[in-house]
Amino acid sequence: MSEIKKIAVLTSGGDAPGMNPCIRAVVRTGLHLGYEVAGIMHGYQGMIDNNIVDMNSHSVSNILQLGGTILKTARCADFRNVEGRKLAFENLKKNNIDALVAIGGDGTFTGLERLSSEYDLQVIGVPGTIDNDLYGSDYTLGFDTATNTVIEAIDKIRDTAESHARLFFVEVMGRDAGCIALRAGIAAGAEAIMLPERDTSIEELIATLNDGVAKNKNSAIVIVSEGDKSGGAFNVAKRVKEVFNFYDTKVTILGHLQRGGSPSSFDRILGCRMGFAAVKALQAGESRKTVGLRGNKIVLTDIEEALKGHEFKLEEDLLEMSTILA
Amino acid sequence: MSEIKKIAVLTSGGDAPGMNPCIRAVVRTGLHLGYEVAGIMHGYQGMIDNNIVDMNSHSVSNILQLGGTILKTARCADFRNVEGRKLAFENLKKNNIDALVAIGGDGTFTGLERLSSEYDLQVIGVPGTIDNDLYGSDYTLGFDTATNTVIEAIDKIRDTAESHARLFFVEVMGRDAGCIALRAGIAAGAEAIMLPERDTSIEELIATLNDGVAKNKNSAIVIVSEGDKSGGAFNVAKRVKEVFNFYDTKVTILGHLQRGGSPSSFDRILGCRMGFAAVKALQAGESRKTVGLRGNKIVLTDIEEALKGHEFKLEEDLLEMSTILA
Amino acid sequence: MSEIKKIAVLTSGGDAPGMNPCIRAVVRTGLHLGYEVAGIMHGYQGMIDNNIVDMNSHSVSNILQLGGTILKTARCADFRNVEGRKLAFENLKKNNIDALVAIGGDGTFTGLERLSSEYDLQVIGVPGTIDNDLYGSDYTLGFDTATNTVIEAIDKIRDTAESHARLFFVEVMGRDAGCIALRAGIAAGAEAIMLPERDTSIEELIATLNDGVAKNKNSAIVIVSEGDKSGGAFNVAKRVKEVFNFYDTKVTILGHLQRGGSPSSFDRILGCRMGFAAVKALQAGESRKTVGLRGNKIVLTDIEEALKGHEFKLEEDLLEMSTILA
Amino acid sequence: MSEIKKIAVLTSGGDAPGMNPCIRAVVRTGLHLGYEVAGIMHGYQGMIDNNIVDMNSHSVSNILQLGGTILKTARCADFRNVEGRKLAFENLKKNNIDALVAIGGDGTFTGLERLSSEYDLQVIGVPGTIDNDLYGSDYTLGFDTATNTVIEAIDKIRDTAESHARLFFVEVMGRDAGCIALRAGIAAGAEAIMLPERDTSIEELIATLNDGVAKNKNSAIVIVSEGDKSGGAFNVAKRVKEVFNFYDTKVTILGHLQRGGSPSSFDRILGCRMGFAAVKALQAGESRKTVGLRGNKIVLTDIEEALKGHEFKLEEDLLEMSTILA
Repeated sequence: MSEIKKIAVLTSGGDAPGMNPCIRAVVRTGLHLGYEVAGIMHGYQGMIDNNIVDMNSHSVSNILQLGGTILKTARCADFRNVEGRKLAFENLKKNNIDALVAIGGDGTFTGLERLSSEYDLQVIGVPGTIDNDLYGSDYTLGFDTATNTVIEAIDKIRDTAESHARLFFVEVMGRDAGCIALRAGIAAGAEAIMLPERDTSIEELIATLNDGVAKNKNSAIVIVSEGDKSGGAFNVAKRVKEVFNFYDTKVTILGHLQRGGSPSSFDRILGCRMGFAAVKALQAGESRKTVGLRGNKIVLTDIEEALKGHEFKLEEDLLEMSTILA
Repeated sequence: MSEIKKIAVLTSGGDAPGMNPCIRAVVRTGLHLGYEVAGIMHGYQGMIDNNIVDMNSHSVSNILQLGGTILKTARCADFRNVEGRKLAFENLKKNNIDALVAIGGDGTFTGLERLSSEYDLQVIGVPGTIDNDLYGSDYTLGFDTATNTVIEAIDKIRDTAESHARLFFVEVMGRDAGCIALRAGIAAGAEAIMLPERDTSIEELIATLNDGVAKNKNSAIVIVSEGDKSGGAFNVAKRVKEVFNFYDTKVTILGHLQRGGSPSSFDRILGCRMGFAAVKALQAGESRKTVGLRGNKIVLTDIEEALKGHEFKLEEDLLEMSTILA
Repeated sequence: MSEIKKIAVLTSGGDAPGMNPCIRAVVRTGLHLGYEVAGIMHGYQGMIDNNIVDMNSHSVSNILQLGGTILKTARCADFRNVEGRKLAFENLKKNNIDALVAIGGDGTFTGLERLSSEYDLQVIGVPGTIDNDLYGSDYTLGFDTATNTVIEAIDKIRDTAESHARLFFVEVMGRDAGCIALRAGIAAGAEAIMLPERDTSIEELIATLNDGVAKNKNSAIVIVSEGDKSGGAFNVAKRVKEVFNFYDTKVTILGHLQRGGSPSSFDRILGCRMGFAAVKALQAGESRKTVGLRGNKIVLTDIEEALKGHEFKLEEDLLEMSTILA
Repeated sequence: MSEIKKIAVLTSGGDAPGMNPCIRAVVRTGLHLGYEVAGIMHGYQGMIDNNIVDMNSHSVSNILQLGGTILKTARCADFRNVEGRKLAFENLKKNNIDALVAIGGDGTFTGLERLSSEYDLQVIGVPGTIDNDLYGSDYTLGFDTATNTVIEAIDKIRDTAESHARLFFVEVMGRDAGCIALRAGIAAGAEAIMLPERDTSIEELIATLNDGVAKNKNSAIVIVSEGDKSGGAFNVAKRVKEVFNFYDTKVTILGHLQRGGSPSSFDRILGCRMGFAAVKALQAGESRKTVGLRGNKIVLTDIEEALKGHEFKLEEDLLEMSTILA
C-alpha cells in the first residue's frame, strides 16, 4: 500500500446529528497531518457522478453546531453494482484520492467493504445513525441527540397529560432496533414501551394501563417504536381504544424531527473523536476498519466483523427497569 | 354588589402554557390586596364536585416555569345545564367565594357568562388557549409558546430536509383557526401552508411545489393545519404523492406536544399581567368582563361582546408574506 | 423623488436575533416587487469601504433560524463626519442604489437621518436591538429572544438555588434601559430586580432579602441590570455580603450570550413583518420613517420623531407586579 | 450482616442534574424488591438532625425531568466528627434504616466510608457531580447535562462573535478538573481552552489568538476553567487586553447556571441505572462500594479504592484535538 496523499470523506444513508462535527474533524485532522482533503457530495451517488469538491479548513468553519450534513446524503442503488463501483473508483482516481472515510450505517459499510475489496483504496467507516444498531461501538453518531429530542417532546406531552386525564401514544424511530424507544421511554418515564425486540401484546399493554388506573394515575404515555409488530402508534391506539376507554386518546408521530437538531455535546465530541481517529488510522496504514467508542476509548473493528449478522441485545438492566420504574 | 372577601380561580378547556403564571398572579395579587383565595380543581367540574382548595402564597411557589396547569382542567358537560350551575354556585357559597377568575377559551367564557347572569357573583375571564382565536386580546395565553414549539420542531426537520431530497408534511394544531400554522409557517420558512381559512386545493399545492423544483429547491416543508379542509397531513400527503413524486414524502403529526413546555417569557409576562389585572378589576367592582392585551396595554372587554360571533381574520400582511417570502 | 430601482439593506450597532429574518424579508420582498437588492456589509463602514454585494433569493436561504446577522455589523466613527457620509453616498451611487433599509438602534437611525437629509435617498429604519428602548415600536427585534434566553438561564439557576440555601446575583444587559431585567425578573420570579430606572439602595435590597428569610425562603435570586447605579452584580454582591450573610453568595454574568441564539417565533415574525413593511413603504414613496409594531399592526413613525429625546417609561403594572408577585 | 428491611437515600455536596432520576430509581427499585425506603433531607446534615421522611412510589412522581435534588443537599461540617456520625447513626437506627445510598462526590464518599467503618450499616455510593472527576466511573451524574448547557451558551456567543470582530472569554466550572472546559471547548469549537491541568501562559494564549488573526478569523472564544492558574476569566481578559487589542473584549461568567437544567437523556438513564444497580447491590449483600459506568456496563468499585489519590488524566486524543481542530 503506497503512502496516501489525498483523503476523501462522504456521508451516506440516513443523516444524523454529529455528522458535521465528524466531517470537520476529518478535514482538519487531514490537513494538519499534511494530506489534501476532498468532500464527496450525496454519498456514493456523488462518487459515481464525480460530484467531488476540495475542502480546506474554512470549508468546515461554523458547522460543529449544525444538524444534518453539509456533504448531503443519499441512498444509491447504482453503487450496489460492479459497474457503479467501477465508475466511482475511476472518479476517485481522477481526483487523486487514495483514502476514504465513509460516515453512515450498515449499507454504507457494505458499500465500503465491496469497494475496498475490489480496488486498491484505504477505507475507514464511521458509525453514523440515530438508531444505535451497529456493531463495534457503544454509541453511534446521532443517537444521543435523537434521544434528547424525543424526551424533550415527551416532557412537553407530559405537561398536558398531567392537566387532563389522557392516554398518549408517541411513535418514535427504530424500524428494527428499539434503542431510542427504550432509552427515551425510561428517561421520560413512559408508562409503557412497545419495542420491535419484545413482543408486547395489546392485552398486556391494556393490563399495564389498567394497573396505572388502579394506582390512580390520571394519564399515561405509551412509546411505540415504528418497528413494533403491532403496526405503529395509530394502529395500537385504535386497538386499545376498542377495549380501554378510561382516558381520552391522542397520537403523536414524531417522524423526522428526530433526525434533526443541533448535535448534543456527546455527539459533537463523538464526531470529533471518530473523525480524528479515522484519519489517524489511515495515517497508520489501517484500512477496512470501522472506528467505535468502547467505554471511553476509541477502538477499531474489522469491517467484515462489523458487518456480520450480530444479534443485538438491548441492555438487560434497561429492559428490567422499563417495567418497574414507571 | 357587596364587597368581595374571597376570590376563586379555575382553569377550563384545553390547557395552555402560561396558565400557571396566571394562577400564581391571581393568588398572590389577591392575597396582597387582602382577599382570601381558593383554587377550583378540574375546571367547572370541580365547582360541581366541591373540589375546592384554599390557596396561600406558598401554594403557587415555583410554578411560573411549569407547563400545564396545577389546578388541572377538564371539559364539563353538566355545567351546561341549569342544575349543574345551581350545584356549582351552592358550592361557591359554601366556600364563601364571592368572585371568580376563569382562565380558558370560548366554552369557559360561555359558562362564566351563564353563571354570572343567573347568580350574584363577580366574574372575570382570562383568555387562555394556544389557538389565539378569542376576541378581546391580541394574544391568548399559550399561543407564543406553542408557536415556538412548532418552529423548533420544523427547524429540526429542515436539517434533515436539507441533507436529503425530501418533502415533509407537518400537521399542527388549529381546528378552526390557522394562527399557529400561519405564524409557524412563516417563522420557519415553510414552502406552503394549508389553513382552515384559506382554501388551498391539492392542485395549487402541487403547483407551489413544482415552482420550488423549478428553483432547484431540493426539499420542501408543508404545514397543514389540523382543520384544513383537505383532511389532515396524512391525507394531503397521500393525495400529493399520487401526482407529485419528485421527492420522497414524510409525515409528522406534532399533536399534543404543542400544548406543553415551559411557558415562554412572553406567555409568563402575559399570564402575570392578566392575572394581576383580573384581580384589580374585581377590586374595582368590575364583573362580566374579559381581560386582554391590546398593543402593550391590558384592556377589559364585556363578556357578551367577547362571545359574539366575530369573524376572525388572519393578518393581511402575514397572509401575503406567506406566499412571497418562502 | 424618482422611482427606485435598487434597494440596499444593512445592519448596524449591536447585533440582535431577528436581524436575519428581516434581511431575508427585505431581499425577497424587494425582488418580488421587481427591485434589485444589495447587501451592505459591516453597517455604515461597508458603505464607506464599498463593501457591497448583490443579493438574490438564494443569498438569504436558510437564515431565518440563525442568530446574529449575515451582513455583519460594526460601529462606525467615520460615518459621523460629513466626509464619511459623502464617501458612503458616492459608493451607493456607484452601485446604483437609490433606497436604503437600515436595521439597528438609535445610532443607526441618527446616521440614517443625517445621510438622507444631505442626499437624495429614500430611507427606512427598522428597530433592531435587544434593549427594547426605541420610540415608535412596542417591541424591537431581538428583545423577545434575549428575554427568553435570560429566563432559561435563571430557571437553571433556580434549580440549584432550590437545592441549597443560596443567594444568586445575575447580571443582565441594559445600560440605560431595564426592560430585559424587569421582564426577565418577573417571568423568572426573581426575588429582587435592580433597574437603572429605579433607585434601589443596598439597604432596601437587604430588607427585601430579609423579608424572604422571614417567609422561610431558602434561597433568593437578584437580577442586576448592568446599568444599575450600584455598579454591576459583583459590586452589589460584595456590598450585600458585608451585611447579609444568611446565604452563601454566587454571581453569574450572562454577558453576550444574551445577544445570540436562534430568534424566537416572535422575533422571526417581527423581522419578517418589519422587513416586508419597510420595502412596501419604499415602494409607496415613503422615506425618513421607521417601521414599528403597535398592537398587532405595523406603523410608520417620522425618523425625527423617533429620535427625539423621549422619556421611556417601564410599564406601571410590571413595576408594581415586580414587588408583589415574587 | 443481617437482611436489610429499610433503605435510605440522600444527596450531598454540590447538586447535579440526574440526582432526581437516581433518587426515583432507588425508591422505586427498593419498593419493588420489598424494602421500605426513606429519604434523608439536606445530606448528612439531615441525618444528624433526624430530618428523614418515608418515601413511597408517589413521592418520586414527576421528578425525572427536574434539575437539582428534591432531597436538597448541603455540606455538613459536623459529620466530619465522630460525635456527628454517632448522632447520625442513632437517627438511622431510630428510623430502622439498615442500608444507605449516598449520591455525591468525594466528600460524600469519605463520609460514607467513615460511617460504615464505624457502624454496622450497608452502604453504596453513587457518583454525582458535574465535574466528572471521580474514580470508578467513565461519567458522573450531571456532567453530560452541564456540558450541554455550556455549549448552548457558547453557541449563542458565537452568533454575536461572528457578527462583530470580538474576543470572548467564557469562564466555566471546574476548580481542579478541566473536564467541562475541555469537552465544551472542543464541542463548541473554542479557539483556546485554559485548563487547570495544562499550564497555558498568557503569552501562549496570545500567540494562539495571533494565529487566528493571521488566518483571518474575525473573532475568537476562549474557555477559561475557573481553576485555571491564571485566575479566572476577568483576570485573563485583563492581561490579554494589555498586549492584544485586535478585537474588542467581552467576559461571561456562566456560574451556577451550569448546575441546573432538566437532566439530559444521558444523565437520566445514568441516574436510573446507577440507582437501580445500587439497590440491587444492597440486595446482593454488597457494601462499601461505589457504582459506576464503564463502557456500557454498570460496575462496582471498592470505596477505599475510589477514594485513593488517583491521578486523573484528561483523554489524550481530546487534548490533542483541542489544538488542531479549532
